[in-house]
Amino acid sequence: MNNLTHFDASGQAHMVDVGEKAETRRVAVACGSIHMQAETLATIESGDAKKGDVLGIARIAAIQGAKRTSELIPLCHPIPLTKVSVEFHIERPAHTVHCRVTAETVGRTGVEMEALTAASVALLTIYDMCKAIDRGMTIREIRLLEKLGGKSGHWQAG
Amino acid sequence: MNNLTHFDASGQAHMVDVGEKAETRRVAVACGSIHMQAETLATIESGDAKKGDVLGIARIAAIQGAKRTSELIPLCHPIPLTKVSVEFHIERPAHTVHCRVTAETVGRTGVEMEALTAASVALLTIYDMCKAIDRGMTIREIRLLEKLGGKSGHWQAG
Amino acid sequence: MNNLTHFDASGQAHMVDVGEKAETRRVAVACGSIHMQAETLATIESGDAKKGDVLGIARIAAIQGAKRTSELIPLCHPIPLTKVSVEFHIERPAHTVHCRVTAETVGRTGVEMEALTAASVALLTIYDMCKAIDRGMTIREIRLLEKLGGKSGHWQAG
Amino acid sequence: MNNLTHFDASGQAHMVDVGEKAETRRVAVACGSIHMQAETLATIESGDAKKGDVLGIARIAAIQGAKRTSELIPLCHPIPLTKVSVEFHIERPAHTVHCRVTAETVGRTGVEMEALTAASVALLTIYDMCKAIDRGMTIREIRLLEKLGGKSGHWQAG
Amino acid sequence: MNNLTHFDASGQAHMVDVGEKAETRRVAVACGSIHMQAETLATIESGDAKKGDVLGIARIAAIQGAKRTSELIPLCHPIPLTKVSVEFHIERPAHTVHCRVTAETVGRTGVEMEALTAASVALLTIYDMCKAIDRGMTIREIRLLEKLGGKSGHWQAG
Amino acid sequence: MNNLTHFDASGQAHMVDVGEKAETRRVAVACGSIHMQAETLATIESGDAKKGDVLGIARIAAIQGAKRTSELIPLCHPIPLTKVSVEFHIERPAHTVHCRVTAETVGRTGVEMEALTAASVALLTIYDMCKAIDRGMTIREIRLLEKLGGKSGHWQAG
Repeated sequence: MNNLTHFDASGQAHMVDVGEKAETRRVAVACGSIHMQAETLATIESGDAKKGDVLGIARIAAIQGAKRTSELIPLCHPIPLTKVSVEFHIERPAHTVHCRVTAETVGRTGVEMEALTAASVALLTIYDMCKAIDRGMTIREIRLLEKLGGKSGHWQAG
Repeated sequence: MNNLTHFDASGQAHMVDVGEKAETRRVAVACGSIHMQAETLATIESGDAKKGDVLGIARIAAIQGAKRTSELIPLCHPIPLTKVSVEFHIERPAHTVHCRVTAETVGRTGVEMEALTAASVALLTIYDMCKAIDRGMTIREIRLLEKLGGKSGHWQAG
Repeated sequence: MNNLTHFDASGQAHMVDVGEKAETRRVAVACGSIHMQAETLATIESGDAKKGDVLGIARIAAIQGAKRTSELIPLCHPIPLTKVSVEFHIERPAHTVHCRVTAETVGRTGVEMEALTAASVALLTIYDMCKAIDRGMTIREIRLLEKLGGKSGHWQAG
Repeated sequence: MNNLTHFDASGQAHMVDVGEKAETRRVAVACGSIHMQAETLATIESGDAKKGDVLGIARIAAIQGAKRTSELIPLCHPIPLTKVSVEFHIERPAHTVHCRVTAETVGRTGVEMEALTAASVALLTIYDMCKAIDRGMTIREIRLLEKLGGKSGHWQAG
Repeated sequence: MNNLTHFDASGQAHMVDVGEKAETRRVAVACGSIHMQAETLATIESGDAKKGDVLGIARIAAIQGAKRTSELIPLCHPIPLTKVSVEFHIERPAHTVHCRVTAETVGRTGVEMEALTAASVALLTIYDMCKAIDRGMTIREIRLLEKLGGKSGHWQAG
Repeated sequence: MNNLTHFDASGQAHMVDVGEKAETRRVAVACGSIHMQAETLATIESGDAKKGDVLGIARIAAIQGAKRTSELIPLCHPIPLTKVSVEFHIERPAHTVHCRVTAETVGRTGVEMEALTAASVALLTIYDMCKAIDRGMTIREIRLLEKLGGKSGHWQAG
């Protein structure tokens, strides 16, 4: 099982040594979505800073969640993030809110988990804020879209 | 927008008052899954405590994540969880690991978010541990299956 | 120094025993304000969910900060908050944003520190978001306005 | 509203990109004070390590609080602090304890929020420890005194 | 392995269900010690609030550590502590500082881990503060002395 | 008391300035052990990923604990760890589990506290998981074995 880097030669979990890696700019872009009833989406869309800004709150939760990644994911390195941005896109016919997060650092290891964690927290926050009217909402397709930097270089989802 | 309980009459976010609610037993069951390449799943299946226990680590991460829910989700109440359990089920033909979390408390508000957060953290941890061999893994269908307790009583996904 | 309850008879700090106290409804109201330049206030006022919602973000930070109180204040008991609400009031002639927080629990000890901490975090967040245009902003008059519940009963600022 | 750097061009909050900034030594000095009754101040002054060291505990809380800044302030970058020091000065005629915090890092962004957060936590801790004898204490004038380093260079309060 | 309650019937880790247990007063007393060079102990003993209060800082760290127990120990339930106290005793001939922690709650599960964690953090903090002059200090004999409350009742170390 | 670096010239605690120190590779190795009844050790040894993996869970707790060091130990600097590994060794005749942690960073200050904290959390987790069958387990001899890097260079326990 030595192809999973989070385990050592004897199969024990460790936080893998990145001390020898160069400090380079690292970027990761992740996305995910949440599907809901048409009226739930209409309620979200009717909100704004004056009257119930669901997406604004989800964005803040995502940024704060990105900073907690290494506490949540056991073998993640702590990383000083240099940027996090969160965009939402509403696909009305599909009753779906899409979320896209970009995370960056200048460091020795990538920020894929930070971007994926932020997207997850954004979507969980939307669920939380709307669950009183729609318990059946479903979080879908959380995945990495792109990464840059580090030894493995550029990667893009197929 | 007064049907979203996380906003007050003027549309401002608040942590909603649950002080008047009865302390009852509350249960929530949530699930989610992660889709991967066949070889990635084979690698996970070949692991055990002696040689790379991906699912065992994801289970611990999920339980610890459940306890952090109110830090991650802005308007969640802090809840003293009385139980968290996490089960994994491998669907080999679909190259998929399914995760199912049960959370319980005796309290004034439900534990849906704790169950959903734990499931999300379990799946993110699987992603983290296998990303060196499969960056295209996708987290899917995180949703509530069932809840019991509280004023709204029993709810089950359709 | 035995009149400071956070010290024992020999003057050593402890988390004071509240196990014998009754679980009652406890409310605390705290306030504070931040003074700034006229243009800074105008910038805040021009914002909304579409264009830079400073106060909406400060409100979320305050609610999340309230939940972290026992981590920040060494001798505070961990308290399961049942409600937190945050109001802002703009006093334009004084170039000042006022913040007022209400915190509640059903528990063995009061929530004054939770209300005061939330107000402090709200005001610090406003500072953070506007500091690029006004480093001289000043946080003022953070204090308790009222408390209810517990053995000491009702208290109101003079 | 594009002069508030915490919002992007479309007015959405983000953790602003500092990846291109140089790693330089950054210093920030902040202060604040707490006003109380004469007897409360006398009680604080009579304390020492043997009998109720209020200020010693507030100092530790401040240092620990500085390290939590990026968890409390939503859009703050996580920063590896290289120094935090906290001084108290008692102004007896005014029944006031003054607090002054110096924070430093070698990094891509400033430490103003760390210094201000530490000062706030110090003053909240003093309130907590003395509230049993003086609920009317008031926290006052938390502000930045000075900052060094970074593109904007030296700044001092007027 | 069904006699280890942290595992379910199939051997998987879970946070064990305590929802059916009664809320009773629970007390745990734990201790531990740290051995050092004679001069190191002399330096600690010479300190006080005016000149380097090592034990006062270790006490605060212990109380704060007790509150973080459920974050550190994966299968621990979050517990609202109602009391934590920490005593130090210096045994000069043995160059040793002894630490004794009492933790209490009114709840559904015991506080042994909270008392043991607090003692560990106290001793680690003493190590940290003195390591510049004595790297060879050794933490010894961290153990439970006594517990009260719950179904298993009173237990005392032999 | 100026030989304790965590205090300034006037004896007040501070987070000592490391801004001038060079960023070098730093390694620390710490160890500790837990003594138990013969049957408790047999139960641990019989476990594996399928049936109660006590040591696997303790390893994860240790790695996560290392990342929380600066939150637990008041005057510790936050450090971006580049590696953590945890080994267990069973000494059957002595009914003892030994734990050995290696922590590394590239930074301005050492990682002794991270290694010692991780070892402590590993041993506390073993206690937690086995306490239902053996309350008398004792944690022993937590100490630094070796450190490399920084101005003080190589140090090894005698």
